[in-house]
Amino acid sequence: MRIDAALLERRLDDLYAIGAEPGGGAYRPLYGDAWATACDLVGRWMKDAGLAVRRDAVGNIWGRIDGSGGGKAVVTGSHIDTVRHGGRLDGALGITAGLTALQAVIEARGKPKRPLELLVICEEEGSRFATNFWGSRAIIGAIKPGEADSVTDGLGVTLARAMRERGVDPETISSAARDDLGAFVELHIEQGRILETERVPIAVVTTIAGAVHLEMIVTGRADHAGTTPMDLRRDALTGAAAMIQAVESIAAALGRPAVATVGKLRIEPDQINVVPGRVTFTVDLRHEGLSGRRALEERIRSLCGTIASERGLGIEIRTLHERPPVPMDGEVRKVLERAATETGVAPVALVSGAGHDAQVLAARCSVGMLFVPSIGGRSHCPEESTKPADIELGTRVLARSLELLAY
Amino acid sequence: MRIDAALLERRLDDLYAIGAEPGGGAYRPLYGDAWATACDLVGRWMKDAGLAVRRDAVGNIWGRIDGSGGGKAVVTGSHIDTVRHGGRLDGALGITAGLTALQAVIEARGKPKRPLELLVICEEEGSRFATNFWGSRAIIGAIKPGEADSVTDGLGVTLARAMRERGVDPETISSAARDDLGAFVELHIEQGRILETERVPIAVVTTIAGAVHLEMIVTGRADHAGTTPMDLRRDALTGAAAMIQAVESIAAALGRPAVATVGKLRIEPDQINVVPGRVTFTVDLRHEGLSGRRALEERIRSLCGTIASERGLGIEIRTLHERPPVPMDGEVRKVLERAATETGVAPVALVSGAGHDAQVLAARCSVGMLFVPSIGGRSHCPEESTKPADIELGTRVLARSLELLAY
Repeated sequence: MRIDAALLERRLDDLYAIGAEPGGGAYRPLYGDAWATACDLVGRWMKDAGLAVRRDAVGNIWGRIDGSGGGKAVVTGSHIDTVRHGGRLDGALGITAGLTALQAVIEARGKPKRPLELLVICEEEGSRFATNFWGSRAIIGAIKPGEADSVTDGLGVTLARAMRERGVDPETISSAARDDLGAFVELHIEQGRILETERVPIAVVTTIAGAVHLEMIVTGRADHAGTTPMDLRRDALTGAAAMIQAVESIAAALGRPAVATVGKLRIEPDQINVVPGRVTFTVDLRHEGLSGRRALEERIRSLCGTIASERGLGIEIRTLHERPPVPMDGEVRKVLERAATETGVAPVALVSGAGHDAQVLAARCSVGMLFVPSIGGRSHCPEESTKPADIELGTRVLARSLELLAY
Repeated sequence: MRIDAALLERRLDDLYAIGAEPGGGAYRPLYGDAWATACDLVGRWMKDAGLAVRRDAVGNIWGRIDGSGGGKAVVTGSHIDTVRHGGRLDGALGITAGLTALQAVIEARGKPKRPLELLVICEEEGSRFATNFWGSRAIIGAIKPGEADSVTDGLGVTLARAMRERGVDPETISSAARDDLGAFVELHIEQGRILETERVPIAVVTTIAGAVHLEMIVTGRADHAGTTPMDLRRDALTGAAAMIQAVESIAAALGRPAVATVGKLRIEPDQINVVPGRVTFTVDLRHEGLSGRRALEERIRSLCGTIASERGLGIEIRTLHERPPVPMDGEVRKVLERAATETGVAPVALVSGAGHDAQVLAARCSVGMLFVPSIGGRSHCPEESTKPADIELGTRVLARSLELLAY
């Protein structure tokens, strides 16, 4: 198969130019002007590639070639929205590489047996509205009635109003649902440093970890920093510091892919000469399977409770958010592994710590994902980058995967 | 000697009622209306007690009875300003107990040999202007030319303008300086829990510790919390947590009176799903002597540096503030100890972790301080409280001290 790598890189450049921000990077928020311009451009590319193009009720774009044998569709693609100061590849790679792979396989093999589709997902990042997976949730019919009216952006515009202003009708959202999808495979950048560190150019994802977000509220007693001896203190911050150390140690001891992160922390009263009386911090924890993640969470809760009681501190632990780990489909994984091996590389198996539309679409079809390396692990920033050779290889593996699935 | 404890408590109540705040406590910021009302009230008490009353160039109030033998003055007193939501005793106790003690000793012994004075210090807390020890610094002649014009309150009013509005002339500040002070003794609440814990009703202060304030800036690398394995992270917060633990351990190992406190902490980017790339925190450290404090600081700097280098983190340590420990005068301490013993209690020796005007006045005269217990160690809040029996005892010891010093 002939992969037009030069065209793929030009298309990435063209997409990245839309919504370019003064501070670097691009921003294409859902239903904004940059988003619409990008959708139009990709729509033209799909049409020029001979695909039958249509937009669904939320603005996802589908480009299709029917299969001679009918059946459920084999789909590839990614999302077209970006975070603020987003990079050149997150989402955009899955779209452009998907189109390139689809063109390559059609050019080489002609009409497929099963329908083949390119999917441009309208929103995944949650970077404009207080929601995410809007596009993929519409496809699986998971958007609740009235949801578009209840969600707003930073300026108070409801999702429903933004839809109407873009010419899509929130009353018809349910028509975006599909029950004729067979498989969804996506090429994405890793957004981490494992592939780079291990010098392997491609990974097959085993599971999308999903995260548990906990909030820990540690209460001690605010005291004068000068007049309260160390042995009479109940310092919420030194207690929280012991807990933060414990969170790190527990995840490190479990080893990859277990991760636990304290990302936010607030201290009260936050005065230079007052012993902290109260500390609130978050824990983001992820692991491969639900049982592993529950064990990780249980150990963290238990050790933090022990630390609190040893120090005479109060602790309250609240679950802010919990998304289940989603395993990729076993058969699709085998196809992706075979495609990589036939392309000449032995892929590694990776857990995706980040979330992706595949974890939503898994409710309606067999999903799989390929990762290519991120230079320095950088993502969601203008420095987001992947070597052209890795992009070409990933696209080649994706094309072979589509061939294996649809022909 | 007859200590009029009931009058003392009534005077404390009367002072506390001036500047009462809706949220509890009193606020008497320098040169404000509540401050002026309180000054007028105390001035009347002093006049009624037969003292010769005068206000100096910054608004300190002096009430004097001359000594038959001349010589340098023996002074007692405290500050009349308060923090926001200040308590009933901080400052106010030293003024009211000082007046009660002075009245008792004059009633019992008549005219002293050395001049006896009550000093109401205009400002100590720094709770209105970005300054503190304004009153005592004026007394030792340490206010820099132009300082009153360069310091402002939260509304942008300069100290000089606030002085003029209160009818005092900033051009005459230098006239507040005195070189005829012999001794200054102050009764104050402990603002800590040591006396309460040890069930001793009075302490003689050995040293006012003074504080070093450090700012630590720990830099790692901000990474995606989901996609970065624990073993590839450079987490600024887990590093900072190890340092916070070290700060606590080092001070605790040294034992009383060494204290070290991380009171402020800021984390960047402070997002739930991002490994912290940078943490800035403060360390407040105090110890009895300069050499002990330097050793404490050195151990903290060294261990934090080691933790940073072990974890591949950057660290920058800046000194924000440094005030030397001030030992109390040895002869005055002996007088205070003798006065306590003669009053029937064996005092404990305590380092004052908090700052007091005595540390400034020590530059011009022999200083000493007595502490009475703070219930629950609470201070700078409406809960600030001391048992009436402890107040009476402290006042009796103060009176006997003045007698020993001035007769």
